[in-house]
Formats: sequence, C-alpha cells, structure tokens
Amino acid sequence: MSFYNFAEDKDPKAENEYFMRLAIQEAEKAFAAGEIPVGAVVVCRGRIVGRGHNLTEQLNDVTAHAEMQAFTAASETLGGKYLKECTLYVTVEPCVMCAGASYWTQIGKLVYGAPEPKRGFSSKCSNILHPKTGLESGVLAEECGALMRKFFAARRD
Amino acid sequence: MSFYNFAEDKDPKAENEYFMRLAIQEAEKAFAAGEIPVGAVVVCRGRIVGRGHNLTEQLNDVTAHAEMQAFTAASETLGGKYLKECTLYVTVEPCVMCAGASYWTQIGKLVYGAPEPKRGFSSKCSNILHPKTGLESGVLAEECGALMRKFFAARRD
Repeated sequence: MSFYNFAEDKDPKAENEYFMRLAIQEAEKAFAAGEIPVGAVVVCRGRIVGRGHNLTEQLNDVTAHAEMQAFTAASETLGGKYLKECTLYVTVEPCVMCAGASYWTQIGKLVYGAPEPKRGFSSKCSNILHPKTGLESGVLAEECGALMRKFFAARRD
Repeated sequence: MSFYNFAEDKDPKAENEYFMRLAIQEAEKAFAAGEIPVGAVVVCRGRIVGRGHNLTEQLNDVTAHAEMQAFTAASETLGGKYLKECTLYVTVEPCVMCAGASYWTQIGKLVYGAPEPKRGFSSKCSNILHPKTGLESGVLAEECGALMRKFFAARRD
C-alpha cells in the first residue's frame, strides 16, 4: 500500500499527489482525534519510512507536530540521523520549529500542500532550510486546506 | 537542591546564575556521553519542572535537543501544554527549531548563556519568539561556551 513504484511511473506530479494523499490520511487521523489536522509522511526511495500526525492535545506537548513525529520515526526506521535521500510530504506549510528540525535532518526535499500565511516558516525566516533541501508547495493544496477549514469551522460552531 | 528560595533572595543575577549552573550540570551530562554539551532547565516559581541535555547521538534523532527534552518534561510535570509562567535556562543560544518550539510553549522567559553565531536563532530569524517571551543572554556565557570549545577541541585531536 505504501510503496510507490516510481520506476514504472516517473510522473513527478502523480508521485507527489500519491504521497500527499497518504499525508492527508494522517491528517484525517488527527481530525478524528480532535487535533488540528496536519499529517506528514517521510518517503525514501518510494517507501514510507516515517509518518505522523499532530498529537499536541493527546500528548499534552506543543512540540508534537506531525513533522516532528515523522522525522523521528524515519530516523528510527532508517537507523540514521540524517534523511538526505528522503522527502517529507506534509499537508500544511511547516512552522519555524518544524522547518528548523528539517534543517538538522538534512532532508532531501520538503513538499507541502496548503500555505500557512500566519505561522508558516516562509513568512518568518528566510534561508532556514538546509541548503541541500529542495522545496515544493501547493500539492493538493485545496484538499489539505479544506481539512483545516473544516476543523476550525467546527470549533467556531 | 533544585529549589531556589527567591522570596529570600530577590537578586535576579544570582537567581539567573543559580539556574544556569543547573543547566551547565545538564550540559556536562551530555559532554560525558559524547554529545554536543548543551543543557537546559525549565523553572516555574523557583522550582525545576523540566530538564534536559542534548541526546541526538544516543537517540539517533536530530530533534533531541536539550530544550526540546526540557519543554516536553516541563509540560508533563505541570500537566499543561503552555509554560507561560516558566523560564527556560539553556547554556547555548537556541537554534531555530528550539526557538520555534518555545513560541508554541508561550514560555515566559528565555535565558541563554553562550551565543551561537552560526546556528543560533537570532542570526536567522527575527521575531520568532512569542510576543510575551522575555529574552536574556550572556548568563555565565564564559563557562557555557568553554564547555562547547572543550568538546570540539577534543574532537579535533
């Protein structure tokens, strides 16, 4: 289920959307648990090596963002601290903490869905990603953002 | 040992140095374990509620910085996600990840020892601390920095 055969299908858009849908599945788990719905997966050579969703309420820990869980899980899976050959897919633009964490992982690529103009790293800092980290945004942005809007609309009711 | 009676001694400099020495003790644990020697304590009303030292090698996890451990421990001790009435003492200027984490904790004050011109948050981003977080630097900076220099000098030998 979580293996994407990119040898047979080298369409980068299809690959991005495939993995972003898995990140959305993680975000939906957060939503179902009453957490701000952000989900993430870390992919290494077509294989999911880490996944996570926001657990700040359940763990009573503001640092328990989806990306942090996914980075820690990926390091554990791979047995190495660095994620140079990996891509992080995350449904919402990472915050400064998570972008800062990505620096330390030296992750190969960061792909996010919906922008986060208020708390996203790109509005706060410039050049905080690792110089070797590629960046792509807007992958399934509408779906990723819709889940966030649905969550906050429900809280306002 | 970890309770500071600030009712009897309201000297802020003495209080800062008292807690920074406890953070240095944490950093020394990291040093002894072959980790980059950074230590941190979180103090709430004169009491240590969280402590941590860098564990990136032992945990094989680049996100396992002293501050992250201390924040998570403090939330667990206090039973609340936010650390509004707490002060973080950390031996070295926090990186972007840890400063970003401090934003989410809404910590009352951040006190660091030695500056970190290369990876410290202040050279990378402006205004990433929470607006209600006070900042103080240079507390026992020489001792804090000496431990770092000793660590890196030993590695170069």
